[in-house]
Amino acid sequence: MQITGDMLIGAQAVRGNDAVLQAINPATGEVLGPDFHGGGAFEVDRACTLAEQAFDTFRALAPQRRAAFLERIADGIEALGDTLITRAHQESGLPVARLQGERGRTANQLRLFASVLRDGRWQQATLDSALPHRTPPRPDLRMQNIALGPVAVFGASNFPLAFSVAGGDTASALAAGCPVVAKAHPAHLGTSELVGRVIQQAVAQEGLPEGVFSMVVGAGNEIGTALVAHPAIQAVGFTGSRAGGLALTRVAQQRPQPIPVYAEMSSINPVFLMPAALRARGEQIARDLVDSLVLGVGQFCTNPGLVLAVDGPALDAFRDAAAAAVGVKPAATMLTPGIHAAYEKGVAGFGEINGLHRIACGVAATGPNQACPALFETTAAQFIADHRMQAEVFGPSSVLVRCRDAGEMAALARQLEGQLTATVHADPDDYEAVAGLLPVLERKAGRVLFNGYPTGVEVSYAMVHGGPFPATSDSRTTSVGAAAIARFLRPVCYQNVPAELLPQALQDGNPLGLWRLVDGELGRA
Amino acid sequence: MQITGDMLIGAQAVRGNDAVLQAINPATGEVLGPDFHGGGAFEVDRACTLAEQAFDTFRALAPQRRAAFLERIADGIEALGDTLITRAHQESGLPVARLQGERGRTANQLRLFASVLRDGRWQQATLDSALPHRTPPRPDLRMQNIALGPVAVFGASNFPLAFSVAGGDTASALAAGCPVVAKAHPAHLGTSELVGRVIQQAVAQEGLPEGVFSMVVGAGNEIGTALVAHPAIQAVGFTGSRAGGLALTRVAQQRPQPIPVYAEMSSINPVFLMPAALRARGEQIARDLVDSLVLGVGQFCTNPGLVLAVDGPALDAFRDAAAAAVGVKPAATMLTPGIHAAYEKGVAGFGEINGLHRIACGVAATGPNQACPALFETTAAQFIADHRMQAEVFGPSSVLVRCRDAGEMAALARQLEGQLTATVHADPDDYEAVAGLLPVLERKAGRVLFNGYPTGVEVSYAMVHGGPFPATSDSRTTSVGAAAIARFLRPVCYQNVPAELLPQALQDGNPLGLWRLVDGELGRA
Repeated sequence: MQITGDMLIGAQAVRGNDAVLQAINPATGEVLGPDFHGGGAFEVDRACTLAEQAFDTFRALAPQRRAAFLERIADGIEALGDTLITRAHQESGLPVARLQGERGRTANQLRLFASVLRDGRWQQATLDSALPHRTPPRPDLRMQNIALGPVAVFGASNFPLAFSVAGGDTASALAAGCPVVAKAHPAHLGTSELVGRVIQQAVAQEGLPEGVFSMVVGAGNEIGTALVAHPAIQAVGFTGSRAGGLALTRVAQQRPQPIPVYAEMSSINPVFLMPAALRARGEQIARDLVDSLVLGVGQFCTNPGLVLAVDGPALDAFRDAAAAAVGVKPAATMLTPGIHAAYEKGVAGFGEINGLHRIACGVAATGPNQACPALFETTAAQFIADHRMQAEVFGPSSVLVRCRDAGEMAALARQLEGQLTATVHADPDDYEAVAGLLPVLERKAGRVLFNGYPTGVEVSYAMVHGGPFPATSDSRTTSVGAAAIARFLRPVCYQNVPAELLPQALQDGNPLGLWRLVDGELGRA
Repeated sequence: MQITGDMLIGAQAVRGNDAVLQAINPATGEVLGPDFHGGGAFEVDRACTLAEQAFDTFRALAPQRRAAFLERIADGIEALGDTLITRAHQESGLPVARLQGERGRTANQLRLFASVLRDGRWQQATLDSALPHRTPPRPDLRMQNIALGPVAVFGASNFPLAFSVAGGDTASALAAGCPVVAKAHPAHLGTSELVGRVIQQAVAQEGLPEGVFSMVVGAGNEIGTALVAHPAIQAVGFTGSRAGGLALTRVAQQRPQPIPVYAEMSSINPVFLMPAALRARGEQIARDLVDSLVLGVGQFCTNPGLVLAVDGPALDAFRDAAAAAVGVKPAATMLTPGIHAAYEKGVAGFGEINGLHRIACGVAATGPNQACPALFETTAAQFIADHRMQAEVFGPSSVLVRCRDAGEMAALARQLEGQLTATVHADPDDYEAVAGLLPVLERKAGRVLFNGYPTGVEVSYAMVHGGPFPATSDSRTTSVGAAAIARFLRPVCYQNVPAELLPQALQDGNPLGLWRLVDGELGRA
């Protein structure tokens, strides 16, 4: 498969007339061919119009057919083989092994949604029998979820496969029955085109309307704004910066018809080290935590950017071990020159905050766009007093906060903004104290984890990759895992609809064999 | 129980120092005592702070205990007996029989949520087993829904019981585990106080923290704005005008931490008369439709404000029958002088639109604040050309649209804004044409109903009282029926949490006997 630098609008490859974009190898600064020809409002309108035209057919498709479509995309991504991995490695600087793992995750995610479709619970079929003899009579009422409409997807820089063109947002939107218009991330344009072409081919091979998928390319914010503002678009999936997510949310809210934006934005993922655990295995935690911190050059939404513990000798030992571990970590290439510059600026900004001290940094950079891991230290009182310390520095930087006692630790937890994750290291002697902390953490984070590290987000049924603002724009949702499909669905009630006209999921006799709630009782008879 | 004109802030009755509000009998213009003493930001802050303080205790309560609390409120409302009905009748002008029915609905709604709590599916308990030998290992992941936080409730003018202080928003928020701060609707202040005191007493009798419920009173928009802007508030339930809903939504979006607003706003509830049905029973439909139109003086969110049919003799007959039926309908008292004035203005405005003709009006008013039913007529081409005809005129006014053919009817349907309901009258000969219309209606409305009338909203499992913007601010939700609880919940994932610290719903052995999804399989073993 060739990378041509075109946009993919329905079944066509379309060369834009707007700005030319270039892919860059962050490890070398080298420009990677070919040139990408960005489009604008014209191409966005064409893609969205096709998506709207495809919508009713696509959502009416038997769920098994959408499942087959998703599986074909998964197969196609795997069939790209080294072509995809090599390009993604060149564009992102991410190690080949990591990208191979991410490819597996991306394919598994598509296959998970295929199984979600076959299982059918996503439709939430619900039937209330007519009660003709009640006063007043109750009509026959049946409810199912249907697709929301065409979805705009903005992939993340840091997962060129799993959170990008065929990532979780696209997979869950397509599963729901929503056509997708993706915007290729400028940090991995070639990777985007390769994956986009796989989806485009799968659309054709499955005989679906071409508007089920398009991918636009563009420089600057105009094309993204045009996409979110387009009347055909009914929801937005976004993973990226807080500023970017809020900007798109504003556009969505100011439309004549506002639409939901699922933006996964900013999180510093606090880690609470409880006293007994700290005493028993502080140095081990320090080493493992630093490994988590530098994993993927710290470029994870779930990177542990904040560590809290109660002052004392065990914390001193932890601090020394963590500082030592950071000190030997090599600088490593970040995804883009822009991300690297933002990291350098963030770390420099932290250095200027009163009461925030750098206590360790990794081995100095030896090439372009390399980030040097950094560990800072402060006290809880200073942290609470200065909101700037809560800012996410995207990259391998973390802040260790010394708390006077458990009460101060809990007080700081209550001051935190919303998070994707909150981590607790605790031994049984800590459980009593943790029981008091847990309700705080439940309110602050979408995922609470014990004796582990927040990086690593499982794609499964129980996963929540979400959380209160600003972690996401909608804490009621997750962007990873089976429940992500719910973001792109809405319920419709059918009252006294003649049997001949009822959707299959709601017909008498349960022809699809679904789990259904009938007069309040769940079953699949 | 005495009406004192106080606000209810936690366990206290609090006399406001702000504007004095008076309840008015719309049928007579008479002022109903006592004076109500409105509050402002101070009382809002007190109520919200108490709500925040109560939250963790209330949400941690065993669901059975919250169920008992809801049932106690239902019992208490019924125990108010005629005191409540008489006052609601005086304040709203609504007939006693209607209010008795509405009281039953209100109590049933509270009891439905009690059964939802006992059933436990609302928690959506989901467990993924650890896979320690997989590469990489999968942690133990468990997910449940938890309450969102304190909720602000703005009741509707038109349902002084079922959509007010103890209405569906309050019932579903309390069920979810969210404390409620209600704003009393100025159209039924005494009714609000009576019901509010029932809830206040139930809080005390169940031994709950006082902040679980408060009710504030205030003139103008300031108090509502202060309520939505308060940092403790985490969601808003609103039923009312489009302008009001949008204003509160803006406040919620502009907070440092934006929060969801569930606003049920504006709908004209199109009714599609298909040719065979129109021929077979057009005159019967005309009479029944006009009955639905004037029910409750047209003051229902689901009032049929738009009727579409294909031109021809059957439509002429329908038109004549509908006009005749409207012509003998008496004017009747609206809820408030303000609502009556808005109705008069809306009807007068319709009269000035080119191509929109009044073809019938009811018997002229004989008392204050009486609305005279009105029927207008236009053509599909004119309707499509002038967006003003889509405006909701709250009250017993409807527009009959003559369509050239089925194609024009479908084209008009595609132009409509989002609706709460869409109604189809169809006989078997119409089904083929309806099959083409249904996908359009599914996208436009939260409920599609056949051979009936949209007024009358069942409180059950399959009900959707919601719909695309501007019917509501969030088409993914319903404000009526069991699913309304989902608005006030968010998922939290627990990873490798020690057994001793796991929420009960997620513990091994399923001690609560819940339906749970375990490794993708639903069951309650």
